[in-house]
Amino acid sequence: MQDCIFCKIINKQIPSNIVYEDEKIISFYDVNPMADIHVLIVPKVHVESINELNESTLESVKYAFSKIPEIAESLGIKDSGYRTIINTGKDAGQTVKHLHIHILGGSKLPEKLV
Amino acid sequence: MQDCIFCKIINKQIPSNIVYEDEKIISFYDVNPMADIHVLIVPKVHVESINELNESTLESVKYAFSKIPEIAESLGIKDSGYRTIINTGKDAGQTVKHLHIHILGGSKLPEKLV
Repeated sequence: MQDCIFCKIINKQIPSNIVYEDEKIISFYDVNPMADIHVLIVPKVHVESINELNESTLESVKYAFSKIPEIAESLGIKDSGYRTIINTGKDAGQTVKHLHIHILGGSKLPEKLV
Repeated sequence: MQDCIFCKIINKQIPSNIVYEDEKIISFYDVNPMADIHVLIVPKVHVESINELNESTLESVKYAFSKIPEIAESLGIKDSGYRTIINTGKDAGQTVKHLHIHILGGSKLPEKLV
C-alpha cells in the first residue's frame, strides 16, 4: 500500500529498529514506547484491521501468534510476562491502518487494562 | 482442567453472562468491566497462555480472531472500534491461567496502552 507507513517499513523505505523478521512478519521497536519493552509485530501482508481479516490474512495472524513466544524470549520477557494489544478502529485509537500487534513488558504492568 | 474457572464456565458449572457460544469458543461479559463494554473470548480448549500454544491451540486462537468482528458487531462496537488484549504471565497480571482475549470498547479508550 503506497501510503502505509508499515508497508514502507516492511519495504525498507523507512528505517526501523528490527527485532525479528522473516518472509511473513516483521517485528520492530515502537517509536513511542509505552513500557520498558514495547515492540510491534506486523504481518507483511497489508490488512487494515481485525475487521477486514479473511482466511489468508487470518493465517498471517495465526503465524504471528506462533512467533510471539520466540520474540518475547529474545527480548527476555517470555517468562516474566507481557501484554499483547491490538487496536481496531477509532475508539481504540488505531493510528496506523495496517494490523499490528503490540507486545509490552519488561516490568510489572498496571492491572487496569484501559 | 479441574480447577480452572474458565473451564467451569465452559462446562456451565459456573454461570456467566454469555454473549456468544459455539463448539470452539465462548464469549461472556467480564465480571470486573474496565470499559463501557468489556467481554472475554475464550477458546474452549484449555491452554494456559500464548507461551504454551501448539498447532492445534493456535488454530483455536485463529478461529477466535475470525469471530471477533461478528461478536463486536453484536455488541455494537465493530465500527466504533475496540481494543483486544491478551495477558501472558505475571508482569501482565494474567489472572486466569486459561488463555482469554479481552475485548474493550463502547467509548473512546485512552491512547496510553498501559
